[in-house]
Amino acid sequence: MPDIRALSERKRHGEELSADELRWIVDEYAGGGIDDAPMAAWLMAVCCAGMTQAETSALTEAMARSGRMLDLSGIERPTVDKHSTGGVGDKVSLVVCPISAACGACVAKMSGRGLGHTGGTIDKLEAIPGLTTDLSAERFTEQAQGLGLVIAAQSADLAPADGKMYALRDATGTVDSPALIASSIMSKKLAAGCESIVLEVTVGSGAFMRTRDEARALAELMIGIGRRAGRKVGAVITAMDEPLGFAIGNAIEVEEAVAVLKGGGPQDVKEVSLTVASWMLLLAGVVAGRDVAREMVMSSVGSGEALEYLRKMVAAQDGDPDALDRPMLGWAPDATGELMADRSGVVTRLDARQVGYAAVSAGAGRRRKGDPVDPAAGIRLAAKVGDSVQCGGMLAQVMASSRERLAEALRQLERAYEIGDEAPPKTDVALDELFGVGGMQQ
Amino acid sequence: MPDIRALSERKRHGEELSADELRWIVDEYAGGGIDDAPMAAWLMAVCCAGMTQAETSALTEAMARSGRMLDLSGIERPTVDKHSTGGVGDKVSLVVCPISAACGACVAKMSGRGLGHTGGTIDKLEAIPGLTTDLSAERFTEQAQGLGLVIAAQSADLAPADGKMYALRDATGTVDSPALIASSIMSKKLAAGCESIVLEVTVGSGAFMRTRDEARALAELMIGIGRRAGRKVGAVITAMDEPLGFAIGNAIEVEEAVAVLKGGGPQDVKEVSLTVASWMLLLAGVVAGRDVAREMVMSSVGSGEALEYLRKMVAAQDGDPDALDRPMLGWAPDATGELMADRSGVVTRLDARQVGYAAVSAGAGRRRKGDPVDPAAGIRLAAKVGDSVQCGGMLAQVMASSRERLAEALRQLERAYEIGDEAPPKTDVALDELFGVGGMQQ
Repeated sequence: MPDIRALSERKRHGEELSADELRWIVDEYAGGGIDDAPMAAWLMAVCCAGMTQAETSALTEAMARSGRMLDLSGIERPTVDKHSTGGVGDKVSLVVCPISAACGACVAKMSGRGLGHTGGTIDKLEAIPGLTTDLSAERFTEQAQGLGLVIAAQSADLAPADGKMYALRDATGTVDSPALIASSIMSKKLAAGCESIVLEVTVGSGAFMRTRDEARALAELMIGIGRRAGRKVGAVITAMDEPLGFAIGNAIEVEEAVAVLKGGGPQDVKEVSLTVASWMLLLAGVVAGRDVAREMVMSSVGSGEALEYLRKMVAAQDGDPDALDRPMLGWAPDATGELMADRSGVVTRLDARQVGYAAVSAGAGRRRKGDPVDPAAGIRLAAKVGDSVQCGGMLAQVMASSRERLAEALRQLERAYEIGDEAPPKTDVALDELFGVGGMQQ
Repeated sequence: MPDIRALSERKRHGEELSADELRWIVDEYAGGGIDDAPMAAWLMAVCCAGMTQAETSALTEAMARSGRMLDLSGIERPTVDKHSTGGVGDKVSLVVCPISAACGACVAKMSGRGLGHTGGTIDKLEAIPGLTTDLSAERFTEQAQGLGLVIAAQSADLAPADGKMYALRDATGTVDSPALIASSIMSKKLAAGCESIVLEVTVGSGAFMRTRDEARALAELMIGIGRRAGRKVGAVITAMDEPLGFAIGNAIEVEEAVAVLKGGGPQDVKEVSLTVASWMLLLAGVVAGRDVAREMVMSSVGSGEALEYLRKMVAAQDGDPDALDRPMLGWAPDATGELMADRSGVVTRLDARQVGYAAVSAGAGRRRKGDPVDPAAGIRLAAKVGDSVQCGGMLAQVMASSRERLAEALRQLERAYEIGDEAPPKTDVALDELFGVGGMQQ
């Protein structure tokens, strides 16, 4: 029998582990034969020493096969899945999934919770009163079949190893590894059964990938994993140097996503959503050309059909669709404060990671595995990079779970802002697109 | 408040942590504010990225101060402590502590349990029927005062942070780091209060240090920590490519130590013991010259006084001194087997680490924090490097806790042996000596 400690030592000294050894680690950890602490040490060794493509694929496969593999082949509409590698203020999934469903694809998506400084789609959805994301595989498949739109937390019987590993990484500072990110995402995608997968790969200070090269490498890693499994995979690389949109938190991000589905909302969220949704339609085969895809996406928003799909999904998952029309979904924070500019000028930098940690401090994320998150906690940015500000003018509003958390969040948020004299050059938010490297040839 | 995850991420990216941050980690972990899993990840990040001398000293100090600092200044005899960085078959402490006491020093030593593939003095001592190593600080000090010889497990109120971290490292494959080894050893030594400390720094396949340069660096690191605290520190660097002596396990190692104290026993154990004990006497100021020290050591063995001190210590710690005269202290293993040579020739290699893992498999060590160890489990080597063997002749005898463990241990032990045609050159076991860099000037 292998010894997890010996495998950790070999890994940290740069050795390649075999597919059998990786399967053993995944199966033992999922089954309780390896405790959290030695597993966390192994995960950190992987973060430090990295994994090869072969190791990453073997790990992913073991994780996907640690539970039930969902069969969506009976669904008539083309099935498509979407995932983001994580960002701050990234509510794109809440926008593009209803859009794709409204355009004729079947979106069957499993999501994660907040991870490190980044938010999680499940935490955000759970800010909708009554809504459950805890669906059985049967209910998940039925809703996909019936409505064409479902977003659930990873169910206990799908890729259970990933669920357990994901929570542990979140609690131990072992999130930030291309191999672990790729295997976590792709194991869920493989187990969840969609034919097509569109990945939003974020890059910048608030992302796990700091450079475009790293992001491209991660995208290629995941496309490589997908190809072996015969899936169509596309990736959109998006900028995450500052937060996406103005809202960071849970209820507040749903509110902003609804604004986009109503035709408004921040320009950057709209731009990324349009690109990602178009790729979902293209990979799913709903449309054949990019221009047509973009028109169809915009028309689903203009007609209100996309928002209607979100309402139906909320209702199908026991939530209150009317909450979507209330500010902050009807939640009120325990403590609210504002960050003021200490000089006049132009915002030259707004560090997304720092904003993410401030949101965690406010109560929107978790410091430890199992901590609750506060749906009402979050940050509403009043000024982003390139915006002019007056000394004493508001930069952001913070909503927190307590006065203590508020003070801490404000302190952290202050460090996220840099105000200078000249506006930096404007940059794109959708940086790159990779696609078809996966199962397109099939 | 710092976040352990953020500190782990900074550490693994090579940043130096501040003394305040390291104190926070130690205090929080000792107090339960940081869980095992994130702590294990942080420890692995330290293993991967290393720590500076300043970080190591700050960590050590925080660990030492996490509990009571013992005051041995009331003891008339010069106090001396001894520690090994760990090896396979290393029973030197069981030999040199009684010798030093018999020669007039006061030996007050706290020891650890088995760690990774290496054995622990406490596990070995506990193989003596009735013996307790769980002494209160009061009882420890009293026995040091009265008898001049005491070896106890780290008590709960001395360097509690180290006790908890040591157990976690053992269970998570995060043992193998110079900074963590140095801080673990020296925090105990600082808290336990002896004026002089002799370190046995092992090097080779069965040690945590693989090269003499690494061993020297570790020795200097510990001597540096000691100097800041005003202690006299010496280090003997010893070879650990093959196990020390013929016995690996718990009862079986006590048996071999007793043989040395009776004037017999393996040459390598005798040689290392003579060097280490001599340094204990020199640093303690019992004698002024090396030759006199060596003579005094040998005379304490020849007269039986050293063994008599061990008997008294066993009795003082509720153990049965008569057990020291019984083979295997009276224990009988559940399963016994032999490893045979599959060819004739000369043993060219006997990998100490592999032997250590085989002993763990047999039941002499632990795979998980809190696992019991079997006093009767172990390995008795019949052939070591340079010995001629006949095909079918016995290489070693394995005593295990079950048939399954026996089979596994035999498989592992088989991989430890290499038999060739020519004997490799004979190497020394005591490789180097560093001393006086610590508090000698004071």
